[in-house]
Amino acid sequence: MRIDDTHDPARLSWVESANGHSDFPIQNLPLCIFSSEGRERVTGVAIGDFLIDLPAIAEALGDAWVEELAQPVLNAFLALGTGPRVALRQRLSHLLSDEAFRDAVDPALIGQSEATMHLPTIIGDYTDFYVGIHHATNVGRQFRPDNPLLPNYKYVPIGYHGRASSVRVSGQPVVRPSGQRKPPEADAPVFGPSRRLDYELELGVWIGPGNALGEAIPIDQAEDAIAGYCLLNDWSARDLQAWEYQPLGPFLAKNFLTSVSPFLVTPEAMAPFMVDAFVRPDGDPEPLPYLNGGSARPGLGLTVSAALTTQKMREGGMAPRRLSEGRASDAMYWTVEQIIAHHSCNGCNLQPGDLIGTGTLSTASSDGLGSLLEISKGGREPLTLPTGETRSFLEDGDELVITARAEAEGFVSIGLGECRGLVVG
Amino acid sequence: MRIDDTHDPARLSWVESANGHSDFPIQNLPLCIFSSEGRERVTGVAIGDFLIDLPAIAEALGDAWVEELAQPVLNAFLALGTGPRVALRQRLSHLLSDEAFRDAVDPALIGQSEATMHLPTIIGDYTDFYVGIHHATNVGRQFRPDNPLLPNYKYVPIGYHGRASSVRVSGQPVVRPSGQRKPPEADAPVFGPSRRLDYELELGVWIGPGNALGEAIPIDQAEDAIAGYCLLNDWSARDLQAWEYQPLGPFLAKNFLTSVSPFLVTPEAMAPFMVDAFVRPDGDPEPLPYLNGGSARPGLGLTVSAALTTQKMREGGMAPRRLSEGRASDAMYWTVEQIIAHHSCNGCNLQPGDLIGTGTLSTASSDGLGSLLEISKGGREPLTLPTGETRSFLEDGDELVITARAEAEGFVSIGLGECRGLVVG
Repeated sequence: MRIDDTHDPARLSWVESANGHSDFPIQNLPLCIFSSEGRERVTGVAIGDFLIDLPAIAEALGDAWVEELAQPVLNAFLALGTGPRVALRQRLSHLLSDEAFRDAVDPALIGQSEATMHLPTIIGDYTDFYVGIHHATNVGRQFRPDNPLLPNYKYVPIGYHGRASSVRVSGQPVVRPSGQRKPPEADAPVFGPSRRLDYELELGVWIGPGNALGEAIPIDQAEDAIAGYCLLNDWSARDLQAWEYQPLGPFLAKNFLTSVSPFLVTPEAMAPFMVDAFVRPDGDPEPLPYLNGGSARPGLGLTVSAALTTQKMREGGMAPRRLSEGRASDAMYWTVEQIIAHHSCNGCNLQPGDLIGTGTLSTASSDGLGSLLEISKGGREPLTLPTGETRSFLEDGDELVITARAEAEGFVSIGLGECRGLVVG
Repeated sequence: MRIDDTHDPARLSWVESANGHSDFPIQNLPLCIFSSEGRERVTGVAIGDFLIDLPAIAEALGDAWVEELAQPVLNAFLALGTGPRVALRQRLSHLLSDEAFRDAVDPALIGQSEATMHLPTIIGDYTDFYVGIHHATNVGRQFRPDNPLLPNYKYVPIGYHGRASSVRVSGQPVVRPSGQRKPPEADAPVFGPSRRLDYELELGVWIGPGNALGEAIPIDQAEDAIAGYCLLNDWSARDLQAWEYQPLGPFLAKNFLTSVSPFLVTPEAMAPFMVDAFVRPDGDPEPLPYLNGGSARPGLGLTVSAALTTQKMREGGMAPRRLSEGRASDAMYWTVEQIIAHHSCNGCNLQPGDLIGTGTLSTASSDGLGSLLEISKGGREPLTLPTGETRSFLEDGDELVITARAEAEGFVSIGLGECRGLVVG
């Protein structure tokens, strides 16, 4: 990915709200799907506090990709790959910075507060990985204190299939799931609402051009399969998970809801913020050849945060309490390119619009833990909030918000928007 | 499900090939999607050696469900639920048995040998279960001789999410997958083609009307969510699986291909063949209340079989070697209704056209083992074929075919077609 004039920090937009501290300056331009008065599920791009209705400015876009941008989802456009995505970015950067185009584009701007956001794609398959090594270690330690990481972890980017039907865009209420749990002292499980509802702070990856069944994506081409990034919350019921997960992995503990942020932030927008991959400690094995390679700076220089507000905090007008903050590249033992090369190495076909989760992004620091399971040490050390309330896990009325920002010297910083969910009983 | 005149064993069709020993007598009438000369992905029904082009007989069908049956997949029709499915069956049974309709319907018949079959639906999600208790025991014994079944097995219908993108219809070549495997004596894993490629004999369930996110399907309504049944082969790379599966379950070992038979055999066609559920041994726990109930005869009275042909056997003109045969209801510890109630009990939404696998159907008998892993006891006791060849796992050139038949006193027996796959290097 190259840096071009769309990244110029001096470039401002005639959309003024894009020019201060915004997640969506003219250097970002994330894609989305939205509805507003009289417009149903149209392709859009965020700029400052607004959304651009892309089909409405087809002429200004040179009547390019008209069919793909007229769809109610982004799958067709993402399937086109890097070239059209770069060209659209360049054209929009030009249209939104040059006053000469204001009259043509301004009528196609809709305030974000007047829009309803939707999932950006029809998700054919959703896969969740587990590349946060500190998370895997923290969770493993609760089960195996002396040997927290399993022997395969440093060879295999561990992942599993998630449920596509229950992925929802930010704002979807989190209905507390029921299921079987087995209290430690009980002889048999009981059925009822989860008592250990948790969040997982993750990033999501949207797939662009995929691969045919039976053909792997080599590590050196994996970058081209990435269409964009989002925030992802892998809501988890820890009590259901502990009882059900052997031998085939998590199932009902996870598939009741997965939330994502609505804005697809492109690899082009992320170009200035890519960093070195995770530094493997001395003694760790080299990646096997099919996982060794890829782009020069494959790490995600994104600072991801989670914050909690309880009902009592909201009633008291209190600010959200930050639960964690850390850099994705400090958490991810495997890069997104390695994830893609691994996922397809057996011929499994990835398809445009597929969603991949990174797994929980915890850093090595105690203030960078991406789940309550880790923060409360399995519930043994509850967190105390400014109201005096304590939390081992999420209670009804709690609202959890994930955000992320990318910053780099000499560039305008960007954000990923937010991924929000309110727990209801 | 009730028995009506469509099940009358005296009813014959004017399509003569339906009247002898056929998988598709007039008492079956399974749905499908096919293409033939000049016709692309049309909805159809199998009768004897033929397929009926349903849109082509819209008028004879009373112009009912015209929009749903004009789709290139069955999702929309399956979403309509039991009523329209029953009405279509009754109408077709009438049209195909009464000579008066021969002139109207005959032009819409296409020989199966001239058609290409497709997946019947766009599969939103594919979930694979593990309800074959003898399979779970046989596999568990290879890891834990004294304690083969995990403590949750008799409480939880264990399942996990599979990959929807790599589900293909019968006939798709099985490209041997590459991946990481760790030889027992090695310090580190190696990457390359799987050396322990296996099949898994399963049944598939197609979902009709599903449920909204956050709303469970009660066990007493689970029957209404079933749209039909098929054969399913969950191709598995055992060496990849052994190395990757902890702690999140099977992934690349399974997601390179899943094969299904093209014909959706309806619950109505299966009505005479439903039997009692698996008899739980004395001392086994009662199902928890949310899994206790459902229809009077929820067991699948289907005899499922797997047969192998090697390249050498084909060259010698030899018949396929049967690997296993057994009754599904003798293998399934949990019923399909229990599977559906469990899958949705946390609010996970099932959608029309979703696919559910039962898991490998092994009976308690040594000639009813549904995988080579079990037949060869983990590769330690290879099978000898009529050619003198031996098999621990599948070799390139091997072809595996799954079939199933349903029989009951006083009824015309039906079949599910076949699910076939040839292993290529």
